[in-house]
Amino acid sequence: MKRYTKKRSKKAWMSPGTLVHIGEKTVDITGVTVIDYNETELREETLHKIEECFLLKDRPTVTWINLEGIHDVQLIEKLGACYEIHPLTLEDILNTDQHPKIDDMENYIFIVLKMLHYNNNGTDIVSEQVSLILGNNFVFSFQEGIKGDVFEPLRQRIRGNKGKIRKMGADYLAYAIVDGIVDNYFAVLEKLGEQIELLEEEIVTNPQPETLQKIHYFKREMLYIRRCIWPLREVIAALAKRESALIKESTEIYLRDVYDHVVQIIDTVETFREMLSSILDIYLSSLSNRMNQVMKVLTIIATIFMPLTFLAGVYGMNFKYMPELEWQWGYPLILTLMLLVGCIMLLFFKNRKWL
Amino acid sequence: MKRYTKKRSKKAWMSPGTLVHIGEKTVDITGVTVIDYNETELREETLHKIEECFLLKDRPTVTWINLEGIHDVQLIEKLGACYEIHPLTLEDILNTDQHPKIDDMENYIFIVLKMLHYNNNGTDIVSEQVSLILGNNFVFSFQEGIKGDVFEPLRQRIRGNKGKIRKMGADYLAYAIVDGIVDNYFAVLEKLGEQIELLEEEIVTNPQPETLQKIHYFKREMLYIRRCIWPLREVIAALAKRESALIKESTEIYLRDVYDHVVQIIDTVETFREMLSSILDIYLSSLSNRMNQVMKVLTIIATIFMPLTFLAGVYGMNFKYMPELEWQWGYPLILTLMLLVGCIMLLFFKNRKWL
Amino acid sequence: MKRYTKKRSKKAWMSPGTLVHIGEKTVDITGVTVIDYNETELREETLHKIEECFLLKDRPTVTWINLEGIHDVQLIEKLGACYEIHPLTLEDILNTDQHPKIDDMENYIFIVLKMLHYNNNGTDIVSEQVSLILGNNFVFSFQEGIKGDVFEPLRQRIRGNKGKIRKMGADYLAYAIVDGIVDNYFAVLEKLGEQIELLEEEIVTNPQPETLQKIHYFKREMLYIRRCIWPLREVIAALAKRESALIKESTEIYLRDVYDHVVQIIDTVETFREMLSSILDIYLSSLSNRMNQVMKVLTIIATIFMPLTFLAGVYGMNFKYMPELEWQWGYPLILTLMLLVGCIMLLFFKNRKWL
Amino acid sequence: MKRYTKKRSKKAWMSPGTLVHIGEKTVDITGVTVIDYNETELREETLHKIEECFLLKDRPTVTWINLEGIHDVQLIEKLGACYEIHPLTLEDILNTDQHPKIDDMENYIFIVLKMLHYNNNGTDIVSEQVSLILGNNFVFSFQEGIKGDVFEPLRQRIRGNKGKIRKMGADYLAYAIVDGIVDNYFAVLEKLGEQIELLEEEIVTNPQPETLQKIHYFKREMLYIRRCIWPLREVIAALAKRESALIKESTEIYLRDVYDHVVQIIDTVETFREMLSSILDIYLSSLSNRMNQVMKVLTIIATIFMPLTFLAGVYGMNFKYMPELEWQWGYPLILTLMLLVGCIMLLFFKNRKWL
Amino acid sequence: MKRYTKKRSKKAWMSPGTLVHIGEKTVDITGVTVIDYNETELREETLHKIEECFLLKDRPTVTWINLEGIHDVQLIEKLGACYEIHPLTLEDILNTDQHPKIDDMENYIFIVLKMLHYNNNGTDIVSEQVSLILGNNFVFSFQEGIKGDVFEPLRQRIRGNKGKIRKMGADYLAYAIVDGIVDNYFAVLEKLGEQIELLEEEIVTNPQPETLQKIHYFKREMLYIRRCIWPLREVIAALAKRESALIKESTEIYLRDVYDHVVQIIDTVETFREMLSSILDIYLSSLSNRMNQVMKVLTIIATIFMPLTFLAGVYGMNFKYMPELEWQWGYPLILTLMLLVGCIMLLFFKNRKWL
Repeated sequence: MKRYTKKRSKKAWMSPGTLVHIGEKTVDITGVTVIDYNETELREETLHKIEECFLLKDRPTVTWINLEGIHDVQLIEKLGACYEIHPLTLEDILNTDQHPKIDDMENYIFIVLKMLHYNNNGTDIVSEQVSLILGNNFVFSFQEGIKGDVFEPLRQRIRGNKGKIRKMGADYLAYAIVDGIVDNYFAVLEKLGEQIELLEEEIVTNPQPETLQKIHYFKREMLYIRRCIWPLREVIAALAKRESALIKESTEIYLRDVYDHVVQIIDTVETFREMLSSILDIYLSSLSNRMNQVMKVLTIIATIFMPLTFLAGVYGMNFKYMPELEWQWGYPLILTLMLLVGCIMLLFFKNRKWL
Repeated sequence: MKRYTKKRSKKAWMSPGTLVHIGEKTVDITGVTVIDYNETELREETLHKIEECFLLKDRPTVTWINLEGIHDVQLIEKLGACYEIHPLTLEDILNTDQHPKIDDMENYIFIVLKMLHYNNNGTDIVSEQVSLILGNNFVFSFQEGIKGDVFEPLRQRIRGNKGKIRKMGADYLAYAIVDGIVDNYFAVLEKLGEQIELLEEEIVTNPQPETLQKIHYFKREMLYIRRCIWPLREVIAALAKRESALIKESTEIYLRDVYDHVVQIIDTVETFREMLSSILDIYLSSLSNRMNQVMKVLTIIATIFMPLTFLAGVYGMNFKYMPELEWQWGYPLILTLMLLVGCIMLLFFKNRKWL
Repeated sequence: MKRYTKKRSKKAWMSPGTLVHIGEKTVDITGVTVIDYNETELREETLHKIEECFLLKDRPTVTWINLEGIHDVQLIEKLGACYEIHPLTLEDILNTDQHPKIDDMENYIFIVLKMLHYNNNGTDIVSEQVSLILGNNFVFSFQEGIKGDVFEPLRQRIRGNKGKIRKMGADYLAYAIVDGIVDNYFAVLEKLGEQIELLEEEIVTNPQPETLQKIHYFKREMLYIRRCIWPLREVIAALAKRESALIKESTEIYLRDVYDHVVQIIDTVETFREMLSSILDIYLSSLSNRMNQVMKVLTIIATIFMPLTFLAGVYGMNFKYMPELEWQWGYPLILTLMLLVGCIMLLFFKNRKWL
Repeated sequence: MKRYTKKRSKKAWMSPGTLVHIGEKTVDITGVTVIDYNETELREETLHKIEECFLLKDRPTVTWINLEGIHDVQLIEKLGACYEIHPLTLEDILNTDQHPKIDDMENYIFIVLKMLHYNNNGTDIVSEQVSLILGNNFVFSFQEGIKGDVFEPLRQRIRGNKGKIRKMGADYLAYAIVDGIVDNYFAVLEKLGEQIELLEEEIVTNPQPETLQKIHYFKREMLYIRRCIWPLREVIAALAKRESALIKESTEIYLRDVYDHVVQIIDTVETFREMLSSILDIYLSSLSNRMNQVMKVLTIIATIFMPLTFLAGVYGMNFKYMPELEWQWGYPLILTLMLLVGCIMLLFFKNRKWL
Repeated sequence: MKRYTKKRSKKAWMSPGTLVHIGEKTVDITGVTVIDYNETELREETLHKIEECFLLKDRPTVTWINLEGIHDVQLIEKLGACYEIHPLTLEDILNTDQHPKIDDMENYIFIVLKMLHYNNNGTDIVSEQVSLILGNNFVFSFQEGIKGDVFEPLRQRIRGNKGKIRKMGADYLAYAIVDGIVDNYFAVLEKLGEQIELLEEEIVTNPQPETLQKIHYFKREMLYIRRCIWPLREVIAALAKRESALIKESTEIYLRDVYDHVVQIIDTVETFREMLSSILDIYLSSLSNRMNQVMKVLTIIATIFMPLTFLAGVYGMNFKYMPELEWQWGYPLILTLMLLVGCIMLLFFKNRKWL
């Protein structure tokens, strides 16, 4: 999988604001769903033409337009034109090679987030870009569509009028989306954490050559996750500082709560990274230990049998005049000598604590 | 033990402020004790119903309510409702997967701390979350209940009217709790420090394969401790800055003192970490040194006996015409030659300082 | 290639502002092209004498003078004299051993950038220095001329009146040049990223001694790229802060966009660096693993055959009185004994999981 | 020696300000010496009762009270009561497990320093805590008493009226004490520096297994020194900023001078640390180099003699029909063949540059 | 060479401002040269008595007094007394164990710099301390005198009235000296850079045991250079901020230019350091690779010849009843068997890609 090399360079020297989709097309047709609500009313629709939602622009209710699939450049262009979204923002929405970031564009706030989930085989972690536009009374969310629509639980909260969400404005809705995405990181980290703690046990009890590849795999995943999460802290901090009038005071406390979560997630990622490099150290040391064991066995065997074989060789020589060969007790004597040599060698190793 | 993977993700997409207990249930029934005091009066009670303490709310005395065991969601909800605690705070109290943090909520300050102690086997360090709520004239403390009630010495100081505690307000009580928890870290670090200094001696005099696992064990513990203590510095610094009106000027100097302690503890943790990585370096080097020793022994033995065995092999050949075999002095001559070869080899090694 | 040792020291103790070309002469004659435009008009020329462009100085149109090849000291001196460029600026233009930097000189802004491309063999990354001078209504760009003129796509945008470029001032033109150069980094990083991900696979499936040299090559390239890109962040940040009156408010949002790109590029470079050191770790570990394998094979063979050869040696001795030699079943017995010894050894290794 | 594990935890849950001596009792009776001086007068005394010095409190002269040995809790309590020293300060004086720190207590400044010297064997560096209290017209200094009284040279300067010391106030006296302690670090670092430079030569010319222990020893010492010196920078910086009215402007320049010294000392410590890790790298590499040498010798010997021994073995077989054995030139032929095989092997190694 | 251990500790407990020369005496008599100039006039003299220059003190011309050799304490004391130089400054001039630093003393600015050059053998880099005192209309420069007088090119610029130097004040002269010293670093770094790039090639093509010592040598030199240059950045930054009235606005742009150079030099030093640690990594890996090669050769030889020798040994036994020995084809059969065993072993290694 090529995770670090999206074909972004093709846009070099183009005019800024030229809309080009960078990434993979994951769905055939972009799904557009609209929820329009206030404390008392609720309207929910799946749109077939993007123009249907333009009427909602001037209503005081909160309008949440969710797009799944961002390859349809014209659709996004039209939406942008109606709601006065800057071309640079539209360009960023279409470019899935963004880092988490926040842009305060006066009439709206533009937020880019990365959602993390395991791929279908459950082996690699993939990220899906979610772009949010928070306006005065609307929130647009743009998903790549890799994992399908993950906002259903939130929609149910709105439909069921659970919690404060229907009583609050568009900024609270944006918060709720961000909060859901951030809480989702815990799930990924829990799974990783379990695997890393298993690896830690394995390394102590039974290190294998394959263990090395696992360590490398986890290091790579942590690097990838960190890249996706690290800039998030600044993004949420900027939101929580409420420099824009679009964020109301009542939402601030919730944003600070998300900020705490992000800090904790980053901290967990860093802890995992340290655990992994500690595990690698231990693995390397245990390799050296094993090598020492192997070498000791070899040395003990060689050191015992080489002198013995030499002795046998001496009395296998064919000289005419070798008096010992004639002795009646020559053979038992030499066997005893060999036994002695062997025992001395063993004592020598015992002494050096190699046995 | 799964220290890094509490099931926190189950709360994803829930409404903020939904109260769910995350952690292990350690006691059957939550123990609630109340101490209510001022300079002259003292009332101490163990409550059976949480409602009994609501009357104390408007009295000018300092009220300290201590809860042991935080699995009882309803109890905490009732307490929160009476004292106007924000649902996000209650959520954090119930979630034992918090980092040390401080939230200034205008009418109260919310502090999360981690208490450290060894588990029952004395092998691993476990942390217990302590949440504090410091209000105008009350302090609530919430313990997980892993270690039982550790605040008894403090209660005795209050009962015995030792020191200034009865003369000061709720902020001093909160300080006293924090101070006790922080001082407790010294005990854990002292035990660790002794063990690490022992390990350091062991590594120099007699490194063992098991040593590696000890190093790894300490590295892991330091990582865990650090995670619990590191954020504390900012928490105490924020308290000592006295940005909230709830902290009186007279308490500031005591908070600065705790801050000094925290800085020193963090510094000790970092020193231990550096000692451990230095120990690991030494361990790895001593492994290489040992390997060198083993290899030298092998090489010396092989280099001496291989040529000798070869010589013996030559005169063990069965060629018909081998004049040396017929010589009368052939056998003593060849023995002398072997002795010579052996000595030359030994001299060669002596020369290379391998002996 | 000597990338870090341009002969800069020859200027020591010279007067500041002494114009000396430091670098390689890449073209014979400096090519000077001028584009002069506003929203309605466009004039494009290739100059033979630098004096021809002096008339444009006082026209309100945007004048872009591009020089390819910077060895012609007199030409640059003349241009500098006409447009009141400070001698220190001219000195910096001539010195190709600069780091990216920005100097706000009141009547103009001086920017030094590094363009990156692969050399002709496609093996090493080389940098080409581009200096920009942004004045009130003019932009000067100075290229070393290593790669030829890379600004043609931008000129076509101007000629074709695409995007906003003809409607905006000199600051937007400068932005467009910087943006093009920065976007070009993505191409270099994409190529590197692909190669590094290939290397990562190679390291896991089939590490080779040559792999080591590849890792070293990439580390070197990353070091070189980082040196060229790292200071750029501050340069663009300084531009985007618009402390100079030469940058208009309408350009700010575009500069912030470039800034985001630079941050992302730096982050990618850092990620690649971390991947490379992780790859090196894995490589080293796999070397140790292989060594272990080799040693095990040696040890197994030696441990099985040394005792056997010894046994054969014993019964090859020529003692007169060796009763076993006379036995009728002596030979089959000793063969069976040898088989037994071999099997015991194999079981020993099986037991230690070496087989 | 247990340098990191003073029994500090015994104070957990005690009232703040409870006076407990933490450390070793080094002298039997606390020595109290007083010098009281101004430009013209000088009084010097050794006190037997601490109360004798209380009369000096209100005199305008500078009073320097030096205590050697801090185990006498009551003595320090009395002194504190008379001069209105805060209990927390007294607590810190008695606790020898402090880090260098500064506390501005309005009516006095409290400074904790660490004095470094070699222990009696000259092997380990030990630290001695010196606490200073700088009041309006007095300085108190508290030494642990490990090294005896080191302030004698300073007293002689006062007696001899050398330099400016008699003309300046208490702040200059405090400076002079700090300056002396800091300058003393140079002596320790010089000795260490010489040893490290010797070690560096040793590592290049003749690395030994013992070298490893020396490296570890120095790393440990540097870690210990760094812990004692690092916080000092902030302490002196805080003094030099003259935020307290107790520091006069005329002393500022001297404090800045000490600050420069401290920065230089820290820098030297860091340089030593880097040298040590570089030395360790070199040591490890030279171990690998040696191992390579050993292995090469073994391999050369084995590769030459194994085929030769095999050849000899072949012609030692007892087959009835081995035509070569009957040849008249069989023996010289096989000897020539052996010589050839040996030479070919040697050439092979020559070719691989192993010889 | 003892570069880190100048006998500075002998000054401990001395009065501040006590003048003691710390360093080596490099010339017999201190050379004092004076240049006194303004735009039109120029006076140049070599002084025999320092008092001759005191008359110049009140003239409005720029006076540059250069001292070569700083062991003459009295001479420097007299100069200091005449020009009202603070004793602490004089102390610092005499102490060659300073780090680069700047002291703003109201009536003058004191700057300490380190000049770098190769020692006479061209092997080690040595530093020479240059102290500058910049007053209202004078500059004093103090050289240790190791390399002789290096300011001659600057004097020629003054004599020849080249550039702006005669038109500007004392601050520009100080700048010119600093600039010359800084530009000189490029020469040292160029030489080092060439050597390091050579080393890099060597490491890839033909690593030797001596390479290790070269790497260590360069690491040591970089550490030494870094120590000399690193603090310079702050020194120059402080100058360029023009907080003192002694620096005129017209000089600021030149100081910013020097600042850029220093930043670039530091960056180059850091790049070299990273290259060196990368080279060390590669070196260590190539050692492991070599060891692997050696071990493989040993293992292949041993694994082929041990079984063969065993076989030969079996048929060298002297049992009376060994039927194979009587067979007519026994000898060719056993030879064929040996060939087979050898080939199988070779195939086994081919299979494992060891050949």
